[in-house]
Amino acid sequence: MSTAAFLTKEQFLNNWQGHRTLTRKTIEKFPEKELFEFSIGGMRTFSDLIKELLSIGLPGLEDIVNNNISKYNHNLPFNTKEALLAEWDRQTPLISEYFNKISEDRMKEDFNLFGEFNFPINQNMVYFLDNEIHHRAQGYVYLRSLGIEPPMFWDRY
Amino acid sequence: MSTAAFLTKEQFLNNWQGHRTLTRKTIEKFPEKELFEFSIGGMRTFSDLIKELLSIGLPGLEDIVNNNISKYNHNLPFNTKEALLAEWDRQTPLISEYFNKISEDRMKEDFNLFGEFNFPINQNMVYFLDNEIHHRAQGYVYLRSLGIEPPMFWDRY
Repeated sequence: MSTAAFLTKEQFLNNWQGHRTLTRKTIEKFPEKELFEFSIGGMRTFSDLIKELLSIGLPGLEDIVNNNISKYNHNLPFNTKEALLAEWDRQTPLISEYFNKISEDRMKEDFNLFGEFNFPINQNMVYFLDNEIHHRAQGYVYLRSLGIEPPMFWDRY
Repeated sequence: MSTAAFLTKEQFLNNWQGHRTLTRKTIEKFPEKELFEFSIGGMRTFSDLIKELLSIGLPGLEDIVNNNISKYNHNLPFNTKEALLAEWDRQTPLISEYFNKISEDRMKEDFNLFGEFNFPINQNMVYFLDNEIHHRAQGYVYLRSLGIEPPMFWDRY
């Protein structure tokens, strides 16, 4: 198996945090009511998708660092845009802090995340980010459907 | 700057090809007519989003490997689902072949992709993948809106 490096830990974290900045801008674009009520085709509301992200990224990192296995809980008690954004912002520095506590070697080790996803830690991290891009893009379609222009995809700052 | 490795080239390529498999399944779920005509909120059709992906991933890799700078052309002459899928499949092994021609050291070098995106090559590769996840997720909403269940997000095989 080739071990040629592709991305450093720092590059991955920077890309993730850049995407988190974009996701935050996407939340901000939603009117309060539609954030919690609007959806298409029986899908979840954007606030529910955001609660999923809030319940796996930092909680997952905390479990990995503390060698603890807990269940995720997507049903978080945030019922206003302000509350969602406040939790988003609380998690931002903690995600970097906990991510940086995981060594290069440990990233390659298996961890049974949430007692359900028994994969190498770096693979679980990649899944977090891919999942965030996926759900945020669904929010883009909601916004377009509401006649609101989403942020530019490259606007991560 | 930390140089601790996070992902190997092989891991990144496997993740990308897994996502390409999922995107292919998403194309297959669309009825022929809706693939080329349906959209939400003034967005592009799913076939147009797929043509964007087909016009940047492999063409970008070819330009990087050949040290050539060309413009991308999203307006590809594929007007049936069969033609889109045939081009998708043609590109699959070539993406791996060209990606593997780029050395670990070269991945860190800047390349002015399409004469427009002057970033380290690995960063342009990450952008290809993130962009594919983003557009495919928009196709998921189109499918849900059409009453069609999209493939599972983890179904990359």
